[in-house]
Amino acid sequence: MADTIKGKAVIFTQGGPTAVINASWVGVVQGLMLTQDVEEIWGAINGIDGIMNEVFVDLKAQTAATLQDISFTPASQLRSTRKKPTAEDNQRMLDVFLKHNIRYVFGIGGNDTSESLDIINDAARQREYELRVFHVAKTVDNDLMENDHTPGYGSAARYVANAFRGVSLDNQCFGGLYIGVCMGRHAGFLTAASTLGRLSPEDGPHLVYLPECPFSLEKFAKDVEAVYTKYNRCVVAVSEGIEDENHTPILAVLAKDGKLECDSHGNVQLSGTGALADSLVNYVKEYLEGKGVVKKLRARGDTFGYIQRSFPEQSPVDREESLALGRFAASCAQSGNIDGSCAIVRVSDNPYKSDYKLVPLKNVAGKTRRMPPEFIAPSQNDVTEAFMTYGKPLIGELSPIGILDMSKKVKI
Amino acid sequence: MADTIKGKAVIFTQGGPTAVINASWVGVVQGLMLTQDVEEIWGAINGIDGIMNEVFVDLKAQTAATLQDISFTPASQLRSTRKKPTAEDNQRMLDVFLKHNIRYVFGIGGNDTSESLDIINDAARQREYELRVFHVAKTVDNDLMENDHTPGYGSAARYVANAFRGVSLDNQCFGGLYIGVCMGRHAGFLTAASTLGRLSPEDGPHLVYLPECPFSLEKFAKDVEAVYTKYNRCVVAVSEGIEDENHTPILAVLAKDGKLECDSHGNVQLSGTGALADSLVNYVKEYLEGKGVVKKLRARGDTFGYIQRSFPEQSPVDREESLALGRFAASCAQSGNIDGSCAIVRVSDNPYKSDYKLVPLKNVAGKTRRMPPEFIAPSQNDVTEAFMTYGKPLIGELSPIGILDMSKKVKI
Repeated sequence: MADTIKGKAVIFTQGGPTAVINASWVGVVQGLMLTQDVEEIWGAINGIDGIMNEVFVDLKAQTAATLQDISFTPASQLRSTRKKPTAEDNQRMLDVFLKHNIRYVFGIGGNDTSESLDIINDAARQREYELRVFHVAKTVDNDLMENDHTPGYGSAARYVANAFRGVSLDNQCFGGLYIGVCMGRHAGFLTAASTLGRLSPEDGPHLVYLPECPFSLEKFAKDVEAVYTKYNRCVVAVSEGIEDENHTPILAVLAKDGKLECDSHGNVQLSGTGALADSLVNYVKEYLEGKGVVKKLRARGDTFGYIQRSFPEQSPVDREESLALGRFAASCAQSGNIDGSCAIVRVSDNPYKSDYKLVPLKNVAGKTRRMPPEFIAPSQNDVTEAFMTYGKPLIGELSPIGILDMSKKVKI
Repeated sequence: MADTIKGKAVIFTQGGPTAVINASWVGVVQGLMLTQDVEEIWGAINGIDGIMNEVFVDLKAQTAATLQDISFTPASQLRSTRKKPTAEDNQRMLDVFLKHNIRYVFGIGGNDTSESLDIINDAARQREYELRVFHVAKTVDNDLMENDHTPGYGSAARYVANAFRGVSLDNQCFGGLYIGVCMGRHAGFLTAASTLGRLSPEDGPHLVYLPECPFSLEKFAKDVEAVYTKYNRCVVAVSEGIEDENHTPILAVLAKDGKLECDSHGNVQLSGTGALADSLVNYVKEYLEGKGVVKKLRARGDTFGYIQRSFPEQSPVDREESLALGRFAASCAQSGNIDGSCAIVRVSDNPYKSDYKLVPLKNVAGKTRRMPPEFIAPSQNDVTEAFMTYGKPLIGELSPIGILDMSKKVKI
């Protein structure tokens, strides 16, 4: 523990938006308002670019009402960047810190941000500039080490659970195949959340494909066939990051087979388009129709896109924890801690209870957490009960769903 | 007015799901429980297929708790079909009605359903079978004549407004182009709803393209350029039904220019895929990069898909009106009306107030209402204030949004 130090604080947000990034930085502002040491609180606009270009907004000058509303607002009012700082960038940032007596830096972001902060921290030490550097966990991918789960995940998971609940009920009306592609290039947590709105095994998604498991097109088609034969319908959740056993993205596998849509230049774009959903639908359609399982398969593939991370409806737990983690980061800074990453730990499942801890930046920096084996069903096309127990408290209560009592069928 | 008649009632739901179809049929059940004339209430499973195949569920045997929960549930617990009945089908249905003394028929659906009911009605008259036939309006497309708006629209519009609010805030974080494709083959009401979450002219969607206006790729690219040059970003809402001045779907236009993704057989699928969003993104990207407006455009296109109509969050007004319209249909049947379509009319904008009316089936049957000219901006790339006044009461209140006060920028 070091003494606290008088100076300014800078908050920046980095990487992809979530529904609760603003809640986290509002939490930091609230926490810093408890001390006299932090003379001013500046928000850097557009992440580290805002620091380097000295574009700051005075966060203490915002009204309490504005801060309250911002805490409900998805994405980041401080904007963002995906830039990874170079050695030169780090020196530039340090120059800015020195110039304005900025002593507290809070970066809200994923493992890249933790890494950047760690490097800035080392650079400050080399220049013997006393700096307090805190990382506040954030990512809808839920892939940070040391965290039971990350702020942003609960709200995105709530959206995905709700969306699959809706499309599964929709799919039940006509039957047929529905494939929804979820975010998560390397970690399947968000795709797995598609199951959290299921009420019975007959509810979709009936099949869930995660980037943690090698994906085989042949097995996939057979899995769909088995579900379709049973229920006359099939709802599938697929992660955008699925790869075959050789770590080749499935879109590239489909391209090799000539089964892929290509752009006007004949190029295959591997992400950020609707191609994976559409291609998987076409693949299964040809398979089932070719095999005579169904004459003409009613089928649709949707790609959930940016809405997953930015839908303006926060999970209540996610909101509360994001605010609290921001306040925790501020309290760490005030209690003389020099640096660290602020993470969420779980105290108990039932009743659900979480807590916050400060861990070394290096523990989080640049590392990726994937779905643990106990969350993945042995069939590799579903999650386990352990995952449901893990995920359900994070998304909050969903709207009631009523199921028609089919046992009251009229006897003709 | 005719005398009421003793007999059974059948309710069926037809066509695409909405968030409030179940609320409408629960409303019919509630309304019919007030009379002794309707001895049993049967729900046909899978629309008119359920009638022809005599697959009915006893709706009076459902618990009150089940009916309550079902009224919150998206899609249709009675399932659906898109089948248009043939003359033979109509006779088959009449046979079933006669066999079971079914005297009351309630069909919840769009203009196709109204048309089907009108034809069944005529067939019953020819066979001198006394039947009471009521259509209950339903469609997320909001394209039924005689209705100020239709049950299902408000909830779908709420989702679209919320989604665009979220993706616009997301887009603001990094800048760049975002295109979202909305449902609505012939009517632009749902795409227009993308504007209902805007708080200022700087909020997206900055451009809105409706099927009511001929779409020109060249004008589109120039529109985007103008917005992008001003804000360094651009959010666009596009209806899936956009066509050029010759009524050629835009995907077909892009295909002619070789600018289109095609499937493995070289076919162009005109809807139900992510191709329109992806192709428009590529078109503008090439245009802006080719012209040197931006070196590498950050761009993404999302297709909203089935989630629009099935997201499990009802607009409160839509829910209330859907229940009430169902009860209204039941009350019409009990007051001796023989047939008609139950529609929503608007009494006042502020405070918002609606009412229900019974109109001839033929007024709604097979006709399509499109966006009236006063809802479309003269630029043909936005809506008018009149549309905002029309639409806002239908979606209910959205979550608060806070905007950072950028006038408090730190002076360096």
